[in-house]
Amino acid sequence: MGETTRFGIMGCAGIARKVSRAIKLSPNATVVAIGSRSAEKAHRFIKENGLPENTQVHGSYESLLDDPDVDAVYMPLPTSLHLRWGVAAASKGKHILLEKPTALCVAELDQILQACEMNNVQFMDGTMWMHHPRTAKMHELLRHQHSDLFGQLKMVNSIASFYAKPDFLHDNIRVMPDLDALGALGDLGWYCIRFILWAADYYLPTTAVAFPNPVKNEAGLLLSCGASLHWENGTVASFHCSFLAHRTFEVAVVGSKGTLTLSDFVNPFDENSARFTFASESSFKELVDGWKPLPTNHVVSTELPQEACMISEFSRLVGAIKDGSKPEKKWPSISRKNQIVMDAVKDSIDKESKPVAIVG
Amino acid sequence: MGETTRFGIMGCAGIARKVSRAIKLSPNATVVAIGSRSAEKAHRFIKENGLPENTQVHGSYESLLDDPDVDAVYMPLPTSLHLRWGVAAASKGKHILLEKPTALCVAELDQILQACEMNNVQFMDGTMWMHHPRTAKMHELLRHQHSDLFGQLKMVNSIASFYAKPDFLHDNIRVMPDLDALGALGDLGWYCIRFILWAADYYLPTTAVAFPNPVKNEAGLLLSCGASLHWENGTVASFHCSFLAHRTFEVAVVGSKGTLTLSDFVNPFDENSARFTFASESSFKELVDGWKPLPTNHVVSTELPQEACMISEFSRLVGAIKDGSKPEKKWPSISRKNQIVMDAVKDSIDKESKPVAIVG
Repeated sequence: MGETTRFGIMGCAGIARKVSRAIKLSPNATVVAIGSRSAEKAHRFIKENGLPENTQVHGSYESLLDDPDVDAVYMPLPTSLHLRWGVAAASKGKHILLEKPTALCVAELDQILQACEMNNVQFMDGTMWMHHPRTAKMHELLRHQHSDLFGQLKMVNSIASFYAKPDFLHDNIRVMPDLDALGALGDLGWYCIRFILWAADYYLPTTAVAFPNPVKNEAGLLLSCGASLHWENGTVASFHCSFLAHRTFEVAVVGSKGTLTLSDFVNPFDENSARFTFASESSFKELVDGWKPLPTNHVVSTELPQEACMISEFSRLVGAIKDGSKPEKKWPSISRKNQIVMDAVKDSIDKESKPVAIVG
Repeated sequence: MGETTRFGIMGCAGIARKVSRAIKLSPNATVVAIGSRSAEKAHRFIKENGLPENTQVHGSYESLLDDPDVDAVYMPLPTSLHLRWGVAAASKGKHILLEKPTALCVAELDQILQACEMNNVQFMDGTMWMHHPRTAKMHELLRHQHSDLFGQLKMVNSIASFYAKPDFLHDNIRVMPDLDALGALGDLGWYCIRFILWAADYYLPTTAVAFPNPVKNEAGLLLSCGASLHWENGTVASFHCSFLAHRTFEVAVVGSKGTLTLSDFVNPFDENSARFTFASESSFKELVDGWKPLPTNHVVSTELPQEACMISEFSRLVGAIKDGSKPEKKWPSISRKNQIVMDAVKDSIDKESKPVAIVG
């Protein structure tokens, strides 16, 4: 079987175009099959994305999951289908790269994760920015316990938004309650929460409080919302996510001794090099006529785009399992925390901004 | 009398050093007197700040206010003294440049403003960044009604913090309830609220909700807190201010079509040129392999530092009043809105994060 992870892609969603390219770019992965209820769509997908002509087409997801040549599935299905097909894939021994949000709630995710554990398959969600080398570089500077540069985490703010066109707001699956019931919170708030958890070294906050008056569509689906998150030691995070505001992926992380900012945390401005700004022990000059030291701009280059880094890491783990290792538990654990916080925010929204305790 | 505004400085606070320099730099202003309960302190202040040797020293604030050669006072006194000395200064016909926060509550500020109005004197608070040409440039890009670049305001986040040293937390007036009872909210939250109001074209939000569990010192004074602010049309703002986190002055303003960010909104990194970033109608490229267009970095130069721009503008207004104009109402009106929102946030903090209606 070698070290190459053979992917089956479930469905021909827009994001699958990006990920099929990432699989092609990744040195240890290949696309071997597409599952789609429409064979025509699948053939078009193969052609349009330059996949090999011998890529297998399956007219149903079941058939894809029964394909012995498929090691792993990439699953960009609507969130409401994750439970069914996530469990089904794991039960068939397929490793799962699952698009975010991972599930409608943590109880659903737990069923998927349990199926993965029982079947010894790797689980990872599709949060691409986690795999950019910029993220590793930022982590070096922030490591609270080990670094005097940043000190103790005090505050995080995160904004993720894009301005949806009328047709998106009318018929995209991300605004349909029966398909993606979490709306902007699931699609964009997921990233904000992930960034906050990342900055907090995955210590769960104790409380979530939704901002009042989120914007919903006629079906009651969230188009714009936000929340603050609170830790017992006084650390605070806030985020805002929206389908109704200009494309923004802004984060600021403030510690007792340092500040980190970046403006493209979900998708870098440029695929091959990404920036962030870090300041440590900056203060005013004598007469407040400027700052000293100034924040430093860091540029981190990457040969592979972040989504290909994600595919490579996932495939590496799958390869290791083939060689006898156990699945890496870090990834399902992080997904679960992300989902738990998202659930708490959703709960607070549903309870008109009452504080909701976060239980890990 | 000419066109030069003759300043008396009340007290020798640290910030007065910066402002006395600004008055010297300003072409239409001059320092003629210092009022201090300690004549020795005043003489040292004059010497250390290179003021003319004939600068008048007054051993009491009353005496300063009775000086016929003083047109205007700069008042960097602790907040709890603003009501008494603000009203006294106006009653003596002195124009007032008042440090922020302007008062302990809007009822107090209203007494000061009323005294200013009755005595036909100019009022302005000491929010320096308002007067930087960068602010005017940003305003051009954001003007909601007139610009297709930014669209409608959707979201603002603002962070203002510095890491106070132990001696500050122990004996600075800004942490003493009897002197500056608003703590970090008054000192830093003031700026956040001002920026939010500025971005919202001074439309007051309808509701303030404090973040739970603000950090207080033993005397109950706020060291770190935050809040979200809400408008009826769904616009949201959030802010965080703290004496316990690294020096950070970060803002992000997101409209339906554009995003503005800057990292030094209160005090520019460099005195003579200041930056901000603006993006309009940015989106992903075809395969999400980057953004198009990228945000643009704007650099705005200034010959005078922002505090000298403030002095010049204040002095220009004072000069116009000498020539028969009425005081400019914009500045007291903006201060009042700033104070109203701050009061609502404080009220929400005191009520354990209950939403508080903002009444203009």
